[in-house]
Amino acid sequence: MGMHQYLKSLSNLETIHRAPGYFKYEEHSVAAHSFKVTQIAQMLGDIEENAGQKVDWQALYEKALNHDYTERFIGDIKTPVKYATPTLRQMLADVDANLTENFIQNELPAEFQVAYRRRLSEGKDNSLEGRILSVADKVDLLYESFGEIQKGNPESVFTEIYRESLHTIVGFVDMVSVQYFLQKILPDLLAENFTNQEELRQITRRITDRK
Amino acid sequence: MGMHQYLKSLSNLETIHRAPGYFKYEEHSVAAHSFKVTQIAQMLGDIEENAGQKVDWQALYEKALNHDYTERFIGDIKTPVKYATPTLRQMLADVDANLTENFIQNELPAEFQVAYRRRLSEGKDNSLEGRILSVADKVDLLYESFGEIQKGNPESVFTEIYRESLHTIVGFVDMVSVQYFLQKILPDLLAENFTNQEELRQITRRITDRK
Amino acid sequence: MGMHQYLKSLSNLETIHRAPGYFKYEEHSVAAHSFKVTQIAQMLGDIEENAGQKVDWQALYEKALNHDYTERFIGDIKTPVKYATPTLRQMLADVDANLTENFIQNELPAEFQVAYRRRLSEGKDNSLEGRILSVADKVDLLYESFGEIQKGNPESVFTEIYRESLHTIVGFVDMVSVQYFLQKILPDLLAENFTNQEELRQITRRITDRK
Amino acid sequence: MGMHQYLKSLSNLETIHRAPGYFKYEEHSVAAHSFKVTQIAQMLGDIEENAGQKVDWQALYEKALNHDYTERFIGDIKTPVKYATPTLRQMLADVDANLTENFIQNELPAEFQVAYRRRLSEGKDNSLEGRILSVADKVDLLYESFGEIQKGNPESVFTEIYRESLHTIVGFVDMVSVQYFLQKILPDLLAENFTNQEELRQITRRITDRK
Amino acid sequence: MGMHQYLKSLSNLETIHRAPGYFKYEEHSVAAHSFKVTQIAQMLGDIEENAGQKVDWQALYEKALNHDYTERFIGDIKTPVKYATPTLRQMLADVDANLTENFIQNELPAEFQVAYRRRLSEGKDNSLEGRILSVADKVDLLYESFGEIQKGNPESVFTEIYRESLHTIVGFVDMVSVQYFLQKILPDLLAENFTNQEELRQITRRITDRK
Amino acid sequence: MGMHQYLKSLSNLETIHRAPGYFKYEEHSVAAHSFKVTQIAQMLGDIEENAGQKVDWQALYEKALNHDYTERFIGDIKTPVKYATPTLRQMLADVDANLTENFIQNELPAEFQVAYRRRLSEGKDNSLEGRILSVADKVDLLYESFGEIQKGNPESVFTEIYRESLHTIVGFVDMVSVQYFLQKILPDLLAENFTNQEELRQITRRITDRK
Repeated sequence: MGMHQYLKSLSNLETIHRAPGYFKYEEHSVAAHSFKVTQIAQMLGDIEENAGQKVDWQALYEKALNHDYTERFIGDIKTPVKYATPTLRQMLADVDANLTENFIQNELPAEFQVAYRRRLSEGKDNSLEGRILSVADKVDLLYESFGEIQKGNPESVFTEIYRESLHTIVGFVDMVSVQYFLQKILPDLLAENFTNQEELRQITRRITDRK
Repeated sequence: MGMHQYLKSLSNLETIHRAPGYFKYEEHSVAAHSFKVTQIAQMLGDIEENAGQKVDWQALYEKALNHDYTERFIGDIKTPVKYATPTLRQMLADVDANLTENFIQNELPAEFQVAYRRRLSEGKDNSLEGRILSVADKVDLLYESFGEIQKGNPESVFTEIYRESLHTIVGFVDMVSVQYFLQKILPDLLAENFTNQEELRQITRRITDRK
Repeated sequence: MGMHQYLKSLSNLETIHRAPGYFKYEEHSVAAHSFKVTQIAQMLGDIEENAGQKVDWQALYEKALNHDYTERFIGDIKTPVKYATPTLRQMLADVDANLTENFIQNELPAEFQVAYRRRLSEGKDNSLEGRILSVADKVDLLYESFGEIQKGNPESVFTEIYRESLHTIVGFVDMVSVQYFLQKILPDLLAENFTNQEELRQITRRITDRK
Repeated sequence: MGMHQYLKSLSNLETIHRAPGYFKYEEHSVAAHSFKVTQIAQMLGDIEENAGQKVDWQALYEKALNHDYTERFIGDIKTPVKYATPTLRQMLADVDANLTENFIQNELPAEFQVAYRRRLSEGKDNSLEGRILSVADKVDLLYESFGEIQKGNPESVFTEIYRESLHTIVGFVDMVSVQYFLQKILPDLLAENFTNQEELRQITRRITDRK
Repeated sequence: MGMHQYLKSLSNLETIHRAPGYFKYEEHSVAAHSFKVTQIAQMLGDIEENAGQKVDWQALYEKALNHDYTERFIGDIKTPVKYATPTLRQMLADVDANLTENFIQNELPAEFQVAYRRRLSEGKDNSLEGRILSVADKVDLLYESFGEIQKGNPESVFTEIYRESLHTIVGFVDMVSVQYFLQKILPDLLAENFTNQEELRQITRRITDRK
Repeated sequence: MGMHQYLKSLSNLETIHRAPGYFKYEEHSVAAHSFKVTQIAQMLGDIEENAGQKVDWQALYEKALNHDYTERFIGDIKTPVKYATPTLRQMLADVDANLTENFIQNELPAEFQVAYRRRLSEGKDNSLEGRILSVADKVDLLYESFGEIQKGNPESVFTEIYRESLHTIVGFVDMVSVQYFLQKILPDLLAENFTNQEELRQITRRITDRK
């Protein structure tokens, strides 16, 4: 076994689309989501560091970059299934852990196993970096759902996702970076135009009258 | 609650793609798959009926048409997860049953509940119609994987899917319709061209020489 | 000739898109449309049966499932062409019948010809099942056009399609299932949200104020 | 009525895909096809002019650019339908002519009607420019089908299209531009690589050995 | 070297999408854009000719059809880069000219070089045909941006593009065809519906009440 | 100005496709590419660290994650343009630097400017991390081009890209991680199947004979 299979598998994450089963104007792959979450985590890390927190940057990048890799062998299990009972949730977590461990032992060369065991384990722990990941994951989800609503997607599921994401983010409101998000970023998002139709006629009148 | 939500949900099945996580030349939605499985079941039913079997056509169509509807609220759980342990498999089946029952009781008007309880339960039972569904589901999967291999898809997963599908089909070899498939249909599939490149030069020579 | 070609041809119906020539947010294939029409016919059949009508379920499923198969060799002839003159309409119907009959005699094994001659003939006759098919075909078209209008598609052709579909459905208003559709389903469709933009700001305020 | 509708309708030609009903690696819209046919006609016109023929360039560009515009209101009628009987063929041509004439009279302002009546009539007449259009239309079709075969498309319909296109082109072999195509262009097309797999290993060996 | 490579390259223009980096409801390829610009130039030419101007139709078609061909080897250089300094702009123009000249000398047979040197040079000169091309290019861009705004695209870049296109068009207001566009076409564009939602409920009420 | 615009701009990178102008079986966005390059850099960093090198992980992740962000305002300038003359190359680099600096000063809040000035500057310097980025960028490009060739893409440009990527990688052969890539990863890549067609018939025979 070797790292060629691992490199090849990165492309698989480009072919898994998020939120299957709903009409969407824009598709987001797990690969692109992972990129955006890592970018968001980087920005949240800046805010924490500026506020005097000690950020373990290696841990932060590592957690964010790898947090959805195992979706490749687990698949997309819908939330109502995953959270049906505490026992089931635990069993699914165990299977996830087993499949991941099997992957590490059977697919990765010995010299990489320690690093990937850390990278592919649950990153959303109680460390500052784990908490930043929890927030960053939801910030991207909030932007994805906002993007649909802003473009006129009538599916109420995106309003639900927006609500649930914001809820989770607010749960971390003791963090400086979350306060920053709520005070300095969210208002700009809500101030966005939803359409540019009125502007169009004004522009046209202004330009054609001037001639 | 009313049937409008049910009609609307049929479109969701057009947006769930099969086998996420692998490069494919052709995408197949759950809606299109359900159409094809029902068509295949219809053909297998013809063969059984021609051979003197009594086919309950209402049951056959109903089983095939509705067999993947619940994927909408269950999601795509990968095989290694689903079959990790017998307990987990049972628990997932229970959750599936619960979610389906909730859907029937809360989303469907009373007068439709009996019919949809039957339609949304597991159709692959030991009846002739249940067995035809088991075969038809795998015949479509075999055609889907063959379509990829024939077009030159190098991902070995499609060879695996082809193998596994054929295996399951052969397990029903006591059925006349399976014997027909293996003797009269599969050889034609394997006799298909994989490319038409050689033919091209011959055609060109023949046409341009004649002029 | 054998049934392999028939099974293969089912995939062709996945590549024919409905209503070519207009911008659409969502594409619908003939395969997915056939699935949805069969689902809708199934629901309309339930309503008729609940109201005491005798439904021939085999005929109903068969008519709905196969009603657009021949589009594969006929193609998409625009309505103004098809209805230009009664003579032309008749001639096109004759060609359709001939091509279908040729297909049955030359492409299908003898033992399947009776069944497919019935399945591939015009299903929209005056039987209860034929009338349900007429309605189901238009209900799906109405949902497809509504889906575009709801998402903000400015092409007036979809308003035309909606109007024409509803018109045809209302023409069958003596049927219990049509009355049910007009009284219990259509109002829910019209009560749908067209956008979720206002809700978004309220949700945000409610969640962020609470913190 | 005004030219705004005409300008808007050009976008409709971007949404009509050629050869619906077959799996394709590449989709070609009627708009892109019209561009390519006009480019090919331009090149064939050069060859004729270089050979001393008098080319009416306005007529040539006009014929090529507009030759498929009416597909917008006629739709895609499959060849076996169109050619079923001479009477039907004539009737379809009459309907086409009527719809086109209606469009010109009802949708276009008076001052444009003469020009568009000429542009939207059948361009493939016996003039040099009409004959160049006949050839250019088939050269693009030949390239489209070759592109599919070269990429490994196993559908035999593309071999059929290639054959039929080449046949029609060869029928115009008295034209200098067709002789040029057959002698100087077609051999290069047939000399194309179908895959670059062997080359890959050689390149790799050469580069990695050199290090 | 031969014309086969040139014919093949036309397909490359089908795979270059305009305005990368922004969400769009509709993608437009360079090939389709070239088709539309040539159609628009043809219409503007009609207006000029009707007003008594002498139009060189060969030059007009040639300029419009080929005006973006060189994008194939230049790529998409963003406006702020292109216009950063006059020196840079001149240098980029020189590189463009060199690459084009290399292409003509090395890729095209001698007998085509004069024609393609003319066709692939900058077409937007001060001749009537060059000015029509300048306008036609912006009319298509204006329609593309309007199409996005009308469908509800919230990206402000399309309002910018609309504004900038209209600005350029108005700069040619001494041309009869531009006056025609501003007086007879633009008002119809602005009078377009942005949604058909209100109409839907009225239609429904009217049809269902009538029954 | 605020960070909302920055978060929104991450989605723009999902809509920029790499290598426009060539037929591809798989599209890769700049966002997904950035994810993969960061993953590859992480793996190469492991190898260097295992070999006793001191890796600055924050710098490595930061360089890889952000290395193509500025493509958003620069665009895709084709290689022959970029490398036409040393002066032009320098001028383009200056414009790139200016646009980036403008973006930082005008779009980003003061407290983020130092971090983003570092992140958005050229990352491919002579540090170990800069050299890893140079290699990782080419490894992903090599995998992208290999993916096309393996699927049967006949465009020779992908062979060129493969060759050029491998060349650049080999230029860093003094690095342990490059030696690892050449000895342990590249041979596995070249040993990949290009098709699974032969295997298919064997599987079929084995399974159907056993029955």
